[in-house]
Amino acid sequence: MNLLERYGIREGDQASLHKSLPVIGRRVITQVLEEAIFPHSMPFFQAIYVEKGELEWWVDGHFYHLSPGDLILVKPYETQSSLMGRLPLGERYFLQFNLYEKHDDISPEEFSFITKTLSEFIPRVISPGEEFKRPFLKLIEAHRNQDEMSTMISKAQFYEIFTCLYQAQQSYLKSVKVEHSAALSMINTVDHYILQHFDQVITSSNLARLFNLSEVHFRRKFQAVSSMSPIKYVASKKLQEARRLLTESKFSIGEIALELAFSSSQHFSSAFTKAFSLSPREYRNEVKNAQTQLPLKKVSDVAAAIASKFPGK
Amino acid sequence: MNLLERYGIREGDQASLHKSLPVIGRRVITQVLEEAIFPHSMPFFQAIYVEKGELEWWVDGHFYHLSPGDLILVKPYETQSSLMGRLPLGERYFLQFNLYEKHDDISPEEFSFITKTLSEFIPRVISPGEEFKRPFLKLIEAHRNQDEMSTMISKAQFYEIFTCLYQAQQSYLKSVKVEHSAALSMINTVDHYILQHFDQVITSSNLARLFNLSEVHFRRKFQAVSSMSPIKYVASKKLQEARRLLTESKFSIGEIALELAFSSSQHFSSAFTKAFSLSPREYRNEVKNAQTQLPLKKVSDVAAAIASKFPGK
Repeated sequence: MNLLERYGIREGDQASLHKSLPVIGRRVITQVLEEAIFPHSMPFFQAIYVEKGELEWWVDGHFYHLSPGDLILVKPYETQSSLMGRLPLGERYFLQFNLYEKHDDISPEEFSFITKTLSEFIPRVISPGEEFKRPFLKLIEAHRNQDEMSTMISKAQFYEIFTCLYQAQQSYLKSVKVEHSAALSMINTVDHYILQHFDQVITSSNLARLFNLSEVHFRRKFQAVSSMSPIKYVASKKLQEARRLLTESKFSIGEIALELAFSSSQHFSSAFTKAFSLSPREYRNEVKNAQTQLPLKKVSDVAAAIASKFPGK
Repeated sequence: MNLLERYGIREGDQASLHKSLPVIGRRVITQVLEEAIFPHSMPFFQAIYVEKGELEWWVDGHFYHLSPGDLILVKPYETQSSLMGRLPLGERYFLQFNLYEKHDDISPEEFSFITKTLSEFIPRVISPGEEFKRPFLKLIEAHRNQDEMSTMISKAQFYEIFTCLYQAQQSYLKSVKVEHSAALSMINTVDHYILQHFDQVITSSNLARLFNLSEVHFRRKFQAVSSMSPIKYVASKKLQEARRLLTESKFSIGEIALELAFSSSQHFSSAFTKAFSLSPREYRNEVKNAQTQLPLKKVSDVAAAIASKFPGK
């Protein structure tokens, strides 16, 4: 029997107890769910913690393999889904952080510290382990038995969860022997270079030269920092830029392919489709429809709307 | 080797990380400490949690026996000390709640909820057990390793500790089959009656009649609610009133004894001395000196000042 326990902002949900955690929930899958989680993005940070079973989670064209105790963090507006929309057996907790709307519960200093930390969060996947589960369980229990203590409990757990994430990041950086500021600076330098050279083919050795590192050394370091090979990272940045151009410009598919140095429109279309499960044309149309049909704050619902239109996938 | 780890507001202390927890600390006693904790009072709620060993703690003339896992809550301006100032072997955590000075970290609604709950807290001793130790340990660790996460950790633990106290109170009330509002109303009725009859001898049967209960039934219920027999409770209220009269009025010791229906000045003086380890006259003088020597906010230091004057006790 599959089970979904969810508190949040969708229709029919019991509201979340903490405004900065618009959605929290638990999903127990005892029979594989087909056609479940299609590619979607949302304006929140999302965290998925795997309690039992294995999970492949897809974020902006890259698959991450999660085992029990692992947690994956997806940043706002990144496209995510499960493998082919299929949810495998297992038990997972998930929550969304909303750090774009300030509210009274969090002081401005804390708000900017939390936002900055999450925005500059380095690893994609961390293993906070049992320490993370506890506040999650308390949070769900507080949602179940709502009484006069519930909001206070949820507030304490919000801080606990954030602290766990922060500390897991610190352990990760220590284990790969990278400093946070050095990692950020590497990513910023690479991002800046990619931005300046969108219309060119960018190789690992181009990027290694920026840091005066050998290609092998650079690749190892960059992989630790970004959880991706430099080549995949460049491809992912180019496809993100393609998404932007598809929604914000009137360039044709061919023009965008040229602009981003793809060898042909066909090559661009197939890379885009592989990454986002929609062709560039479908994507452009769907976003257009979604934007006119739904208010901006409910972008999480856009996913549901898009998914419902692709029952065959 | 005795060990005191303390963070707070006394001279030489590292400041507390959370303004509403002005003092937190841990005390490990491996050799009995003589002349350690003399009668004192402070403007904060204090909680002492026993981790190892047994502890007798004295609050306003009444001894409470604490075993590992027990926590005692002392309300502001109640007089407290260890047995004859002696600290027995054991390990304890302690903290003080300051709920008289608002600050930005706590919203006005929460502030009044917490203040009300602590002010109307029913049992004197609760057993929050292991659940309570965890936030305490985290809080002390946060004080030890101060970094950019520390204030956030301390905030989460402040809420956790308050939640633990609240839930332990609920369990206690359930176990003694008393509702919080009924318990409060019983105490308020008794308090009101005592206030109106300070100049008379008040018996258990006088009080039982207020609730149309048999004396035996009333005594059992009142003991559950106040952790004291009705007679001890009346005596403690009269001695509190005596303290007030000693500091706020110019009545002589004999007049105060008469006002509070003690059989003689001698009887009053010996009851007062037994309860507060100072004779009425000594108390009047010490408070006068303390008030002129120290600013009001540092009443916790008054205790140290008073204690230092009684090295022989």
